[in-house]
Amino acid sequence: MLQSSMMHTVRRLVGSAAAANFSSSAAVNSKVGFIGLGNMGGPMAQNLMKKGHSIIVYDISSSSVEELVGSGASSAESPRAVAAQVDLLISMLPNSANVMECYTGAEGVLKEVKPGTLLLDSSTIAPDVSKQVAKFAAEKGAVFMDCPVSGGVNASKDGTLTFMVGGPANEFVAANELLSCMGKNIVHCGDVGTGQAAKICNNMLLAISMIGTAETMNLGIRLGLDPKLLAGILNSSSGRCWSSDVYNPVPGVMEGVPSSNNYEGGFGSALMAKDLGLAQDAATNSMTPTPLGSLAHQLYRMMQTSGYSKKDFSSVFQFLQPDQK
Amino acid sequence: MLQSSMMHTVRRLVGSAAAANFSSSAAVNSKVGFIGLGNMGGPMAQNLMKKGHSIIVYDISSSSVEELVGSGASSAESPRAVAAQVDLLISMLPNSANVMECYTGAEGVLKEVKPGTLLLDSSTIAPDVSKQVAKFAAEKGAVFMDCPVSGGVNASKDGTLTFMVGGPANEFVAANELLSCMGKNIVHCGDVGTGQAAKICNNMLLAISMIGTAETMNLGIRLGLDPKLLAGILNSSSGRCWSSDVYNPVPGVMEGVPSSNNYEGGFGSALMAKDLGLAQDAATNSMTPTPLGSLAHQLYRMMQTSGYSKKDFSSVFQFLQPDQK
Amino acid sequence: MLQSSMMHTVRRLVGSAAAANFSSSAAVNSKVGFIGLGNMGGPMAQNLMKKGHSIIVYDISSSSVEELVGSGASSAESPRAVAAQVDLLISMLPNSANVMECYTGAEGVLKEVKPGTLLLDSSTIAPDVSKQVAKFAAEKGAVFMDCPVSGGVNASKDGTLTFMVGGPANEFVAANELLSCMGKNIVHCGDVGTGQAAKICNNMLLAISMIGTAETMNLGIRLGLDPKLLAGILNSSSGRCWSSDVYNPVPGVMEGVPSSNNYEGGFGSALMAKDLGLAQDAATNSMTPTPLGSLAHQLYRMMQTSGYSKKDFSSVFQFLQPDQK
Amino acid sequence: MLQSSMMHTVRRLVGSAAAANFSSSAAVNSKVGFIGLGNMGGPMAQNLMKKGHSIIVYDISSSSVEELVGSGASSAESPRAVAAQVDLLISMLPNSANVMECYTGAEGVLKEVKPGTLLLDSSTIAPDVSKQVAKFAAEKGAVFMDCPVSGGVNASKDGTLTFMVGGPANEFVAANELLSCMGKNIVHCGDVGTGQAAKICNNMLLAISMIGTAETMNLGIRLGLDPKLLAGILNSSSGRCWSSDVYNPVPGVMEGVPSSNNYEGGFGSALMAKDLGLAQDAATNSMTPTPLGSLAHQLYRMMQTSGYSKKDFSSVFQFLQPDQK
Repeated sequence: MLQSSMMHTVRRLVGSAAAANFSSSAAVNSKVGFIGLGNMGGPMAQNLMKKGHSIIVYDISSSSVEELVGSGASSAESPRAVAAQVDLLISMLPNSANVMECYTGAEGVLKEVKPGTLLLDSSTIAPDVSKQVAKFAAEKGAVFMDCPVSGGVNASKDGTLTFMVGGPANEFVAANELLSCMGKNIVHCGDVGTGQAAKICNNMLLAISMIGTAETMNLGIRLGLDPKLLAGILNSSSGRCWSSDVYNPVPGVMEGVPSSNNYEGGFGSALMAKDLGLAQDAATNSMTPTPLGSLAHQLYRMMQTSGYSKKDFSSVFQFLQPDQK
Repeated sequence: MLQSSMMHTVRRLVGSAAAANFSSSAAVNSKVGFIGLGNMGGPMAQNLMKKGHSIIVYDISSSSVEELVGSGASSAESPRAVAAQVDLLISMLPNSANVMECYTGAEGVLKEVKPGTLLLDSSTIAPDVSKQVAKFAAEKGAVFMDCPVSGGVNASKDGTLTFMVGGPANEFVAANELLSCMGKNIVHCGDVGTGQAAKICNNMLLAISMIGTAETMNLGIRLGLDPKLLAGILNSSSGRCWSSDVYNPVPGVMEGVPSSNNYEGGFGSALMAKDLGLAQDAATNSMTPTPLGSLAHQLYRMMQTSGYSKKDFSSVFQFLQPDQK
Repeated sequence: MLQSSMMHTVRRLVGSAAAANFSSSAAVNSKVGFIGLGNMGGPMAQNLMKKGHSIIVYDISSSSVEELVGSGASSAESPRAVAAQVDLLISMLPNSANVMECYTGAEGVLKEVKPGTLLLDSSTIAPDVSKQVAKFAAEKGAVFMDCPVSGGVNASKDGTLTFMVGGPANEFVAANELLSCMGKNIVHCGDVGTGQAAKICNNMLLAISMIGTAETMNLGIRLGLDPKLLAGILNSSSGRCWSSDVYNPVPGVMEGVPSSNNYEGGFGSALMAKDLGLAQDAATNSMTPTPLGSLAHQLYRMMQTSGYSKKDFSSVFQFLQPDQK
Repeated sequence: MLQSSMMHTVRRLVGSAAAANFSSSAAVNSKVGFIGLGNMGGPMAQNLMKKGHSIIVYDISSSSVEELVGSGASSAESPRAVAAQVDLLISMLPNSANVMECYTGAEGVLKEVKPGTLLLDSSTIAPDVSKQVAKFAAEKGAVFMDCPVSGGVNASKDGTLTFMVGGPANEFVAANELLSCMGKNIVHCGDVGTGQAAKICNNMLLAISMIGTAETMNLGIRLGLDPKLLAGILNSSSGRCWSSDVYNPVPGVMEGVPSSNNYEGGFGSALMAKDLGLAQDAATNSMTPTPLGSLAHQLYRMMQTSGYSKKDFSSVFQFLQPDQK
């Protein structure tokens, strides 16, 4: 056991050699697995290669795989086949069920994972699912850490993502080295599951603040206040929040934000609804009262049924606008 | 009309001479009326005197009046009697009904107000009531402006209040000079009523953010996150808001805030409930949907019925705490 | 005083003679005033005439007045002019401001009301406004009672309205006689304002139950239940409510209800939003927590901004439907 | 397959012979398994024996087992050991995790279930868990049906429970015969999971109506209405619901309900919170907006943190009472 633990530490240091800006034949030979090559995962995988890593990829979409192969990656037939060839593996998948299938399914990672492998899951999923997969991974001698990201597609492309990492402290160094190839801010949050917890906590407060800002701007405008003036007052007072001073939801108050671009780009309302659903699941399971978080979830759910799914989540301003129709 | 307008401009410039740091016999003779000498009004009146103004005061509490008289103020028998002697008058009262009575009652200011008098009401009340009193004042040739404050008792004492001012732009210079004796940030928000609008908009968003922060911190802690670490993550991310980074509601996360002093001091939950009620009245009257603002109001109302009235409004963290009992 | 009180009792008994199915010259000469001849007031006034009352009417719409005059009513130029000619007066107006103007305005009822006149206001307005008008009326020696109705336009035409009456018990007999010409269920609720209180309480619970039924039916259907089967289970169990067993919001579950007629007819969502606004005002003023009532208000407010204003209030089922778009 | 299906039909008809009021040696020999002997399960098992069934029981509490054994039951060491000896099995457990363990655990029912066995789970759990267990059971040739109950402890003792049954129609006859020994109303709701769906739908609407009734009664009382009068008005109007006309939450309005017994007995707030959590999970998973259901969940969650866990769920009236402190 100790033996295998030492072994994987060695392998991993070698594996991350390129990232540390020096090169060795070992580094060239060691590959990193990457499963899930969507809007977020694709650019992340590209960045790994740019930092000198060889990668072996899998995705259910063959065109996504081909794109990466065209950039120099190799590919495998299944998560299981990826796992068989690597000591380090990253996954970036849409939801809890996908992650469960990817790791524990018949063709899943854990069917052939090597002892000592470090598994980094960047999907945003339920903390309890992260914990469960970590438990199954531990039974195989592997280490599973949850590493959800914030920052969106552009940060994914630019390699400026924030990673919130849950898992054993003594593995964080290795995780940090690899994740630093794809992000600029890597935070160790605690035990496995706490990365997810941090992510959904932040997004719950974000959603609440955004809806609150939208309501407040709507109300102030109806009461005769100029939108820019009102934003200025809030931003220099106790109503200040990220949604009011960086990402104001009222068209024309700020430039370069989705509200001034017909709510295109940004973070879609359906994605916010998903994260709020995870927060509500976690709140229900832990019996934590979250009245505003719960109502925020409902409002984004209602936006989904009213045609706002793909609009940026700041479009709640429009959804709640008294004069919209 | 022009005559009277010129007259009051002259009188007012004279009245504020002391504030402008030069002295004249005219300035010494001209008095400023002050009605409402409570926790907020008392220190405001003291600051006016410190800046060189002679004041004539009224309050229903004779002990409050005596305190000011002891500091050099003169007093009058009624709002009406104050109005008879001044060109500039400030009021600071608990609620809409008090303001209505103070101005339009049988012994009210408007019974004997002189044409051209500038009436500055710093109470936090319904915007519609401000508008109505302004209309009645205009019928007497006086100018009523709403100037609610933010900043609390300490800012009142230190003369560092923020004033949000609603009323005609051409009167703002005079208002600004007088209010600057009691505050450091004087914002002209627009027509009469918009000062109140700005105040209740800010406080609505503040309440939403505070409850959201409390829920989020509670949830994160239940999911295994360290409170300080979680606060740090939020504060460097899109969940950031004044309630998380300046006034965190979790005991021990920050020093010098009410949460670290058993929720004593600060801004009481009952006062927040009152402001949220004003926001809801305004939202109902203007048919503006404010789902989170409305629920925030309900939660502070419930806190009032659960013994939290006098605790700082950040005690919603405790109110919602899963393990409190 | 006693004299005048006796006088009006006598006049009133005479005035209601026709309603009591016997005729006298006095009854023929005595007229009932009626102000507000809209969708509800028009048919009510017609029913008064059918029961043998002579009426004198006023409305801001001259066509509404003409219709009544065509049916045998006389008319007057203003509420004041109506009041000058009657001992009994009924009003049916859209909102609190209209009632305030109708009674206390420059051409209002109270300018010329005779001592002893009984004033019955069937408008649905804020209880506090009813109380205030009653106080002004009492200063003129008149008696004002709030008598809001339930039942809608059809019940108005059929003379089957329910009246919820607030005012002095010793005047209820006279009120009851007159109101019985227009309704079948006349309930004395207590002092002035309690008629309104009963009305808005009922409608608040109705709105909550209706939204609850809509959510529940939506959820059950999504979980695989047949709508009629689910309605049957609810209706024979503890989920039973008027909205589920008499007025089910799901198209096809029941016949003869708005949900099976494209949500046409019935009680419009905008009217429900108005009543819920009154409930919220009353709750705020009385510092009563009403979390679900408050959210119900917000939801009908949001429906107003989403094109549902004129659809029956059961269309909340459609508004919340997951698959609507 | 056909063979085994016929076999189990035969066995089952024999097994339920006693319930059908005729006796045979086969019936005497065939046993029914019963797992979970708590407040609900214990009396249900007793009723099965009273109707002539032999039962073999299991519970983690040995004292609960002993009580049943004292009444004539036999016992087994584990769910697995029960399953080995029966063709019909009933389970009544606290939550989803317990059911999952009971059926799929190392010592679970499915380890030794015989093909053709009918498994009836009366626990209130997530519909998705019922579906999942049913799928695992089908792999063993057994049939799993969800049969949650309504009616509480007294109905359990009296054998008057309502069972909401989800599962294949052709198995409902057999389920119905057995469940009829413990209840009086057995409803087939559809495929597996729909019994749970019906249960949580009903309880969600029940919670909404109850809170709505509590808010409405509180508001009406604050506005001057007599509680009994208000209840009467609601109950004869469109505000009518089970919570207002059968189980009114205001002390003194009705006799024989928990509100008139210090909210003792009845259905505890913590149990309601649990069912509302299941409803929210199902709503989240099916992306169904349920704003009031969601807030109702939060309110019962808050009641749990405020000391109301064991009080009847109608105590929400007290929780929301403006004057409680």
